[in-house]
Amino acid sequence: MLRDINAYISSGKQQVDDTLKSVFENKAIPSNLQQSMTYSLFAGGKRLRPILLFASYEAFAKDKNKVLKTASALEMIHTYSLIHDDLPAMDDDDYRRGSLTNHRKFDEATAILAGDSLLTYSFELIATDSLLSPEEKVYLLQSLSKASGAEGMVAGQILDTEGENKELTLKDLEQIHELKTGELISFAITAGAYLANVDKERINHLKDYAYYLGLIFQVQDDILDVVGDPDKLGKPVGSDEANEKSTYPNLLGLEGAKKQRDIYEEKAKTALEKANASDSYLLDLLYFFGQRDH
Amino acid sequence: MLRDINAYISSGKQQVDDTLKSVFENKAIPSNLQQSMTYSLFAGGKRLRPILLFASYEAFAKDKNKVLKTASALEMIHTYSLIHDDLPAMDDDDYRRGSLTNHRKFDEATAILAGDSLLTYSFELIATDSLLSPEEKVYLLQSLSKASGAEGMVAGQILDTEGENKELTLKDLEQIHELKTGELISFAITAGAYLANVDKERINHLKDYAYYLGLIFQVQDDILDVVGDPDKLGKPVGSDEANEKSTYPNLLGLEGAKKQRDIYEEKAKTALEKANASDSYLLDLLYFFGQRDH
Repeated sequence: MLRDINAYISSGKQQVDDTLKSVFENKAIPSNLQQSMTYSLFAGGKRLRPILLFASYEAFAKDKNKVLKTASALEMIHTYSLIHDDLPAMDDDDYRRGSLTNHRKFDEATAILAGDSLLTYSFELIATDSLLSPEEKVYLLQSLSKASGAEGMVAGQILDTEGENKELTLKDLEQIHELKTGELISFAITAGAYLANVDKERINHLKDYAYYLGLIFQVQDDILDVVGDPDKLGKPVGSDEANEKSTYPNLLGLEGAKKQRDIYEEKAKTALEKANASDSYLLDLLYFFGQRDH
Repeated sequence: MLRDINAYISSGKQQVDDTLKSVFENKAIPSNLQQSMTYSLFAGGKRLRPILLFASYEAFAKDKNKVLKTASALEMIHTYSLIHDDLPAMDDDDYRRGSLTNHRKFDEATAILAGDSLLTYSFELIATDSLLSPEEKVYLLQSLSKASGAEGMVAGQILDTEGENKELTLKDLEQIHELKTGELISFAITAGAYLANVDKERINHLKDYAYYLGLIFQVQDDILDVVGDPDKLGKPVGSDEANEKSTYPNLLGLEGAKKQRDIYEEKAKTALEKANASDSYLLDLLYFFGQRDH
């Protein structure tokens, strides 16, 4: 199979964008609120989580129509978390990807409510998806709510905040990232495979793949904050060191961090082989994540 | 049937409290986050929405075990909305029911995340309820997400904020209340009846009952802000007039507001008769809402 990962990503992005646009048609949402929700949804996100979900589904099945709304729901959850993370009481960021953050473009109250709305709508989107059976919806809603809630993504956010200005071990760091970004990545991979009727044993191997992929994503983020190009990243570099943040390079040195990334890559690759999914975009995405420059 | 509404409410409250406590056992939630979530959940709420759900279920069926988790999920959504509404960017309240609001007891970041977590957990609670069928879960998740999201409760919150210092008509006022508080009340009533296998026609009559009940709740709130006893209410009175807020008494005068409440009561009663549910606590709750002094 000949694969072009860049074409795959850009066509996947288009399909997510189209679906996200379509689900706002004919909604009775107050106009200011809807503008705030869609402003952040279409603020240039790379749609990596939906694309991972597509790749996982398509490693085993055809026609990704079935997973378009689930992928869009996932992107909504990711977007809500960014809106709330940017708030003055949290990271207090004025810009994201070169544009004003939601509360700076609108106001704080609207940003809080837009985040709440996106979170709520993500569950509605899955619950009302006419292409899924009740059992499939329940599976997705169970795992998405768990992954994004107080035992998942939000737990990671709290632990990250509490860990600032503290000396963390590599294990602490892995746990925070696993919760804060890994849980949604894991949802993307397992939901895609589940909807493609993959058996439990292979899904477990894919969970391992997702776990290392999430860590690769984070270690590369940390590396780019040291050696990245601010123009490509759309944000200044060096802020982690200035903030004395616990990062891979701060903990292991730059070379150590790169070595750690390679270890994760090897482990992810092995997990993919065990899941019988090496001949798929999941393999390309692994290298894409590890080599990305923005 | 001999009914004691006060005993019914206090035993219902106890069952909600017990269920809410039990669902936090053995959860892997970071301790500070869990404390913030449970602080507001157990801050003296009257549990009116869960009790409405119980009464609706028990008007047609026995043994409310089946609806305990759904009722608790509903209370979580209500609590999350209060936490976010109290934030400095929204109503900026320091106290609620005589206790510090969540962001004053903890901090703003924790309060935002505790609200997010309660919202998310409410969907997880229904999705993982072992007493419900997949079809029942999907029905509940569809209607709860719609009722609480950008076309429901959050829409009401935005419109309420936008309506401040504006002259509103009675119709505007009804629409805002219908969304802001009515949608969750409607969910309570329809979810209870649905889980008791009530047919669609009767559920539609119950929806009418819920609609007027929500308005009664609000008009009485407004009346109490004029003539209520601050000690019983646990908050000062007269703030609506001072804030030039659009309320029933400001719009219709105190006597006009009371007359409007009686009109709503009559309509709710008729709807209840049509649903064949007059011989139930739903009737008592109607008067309980309309006559309450706090």
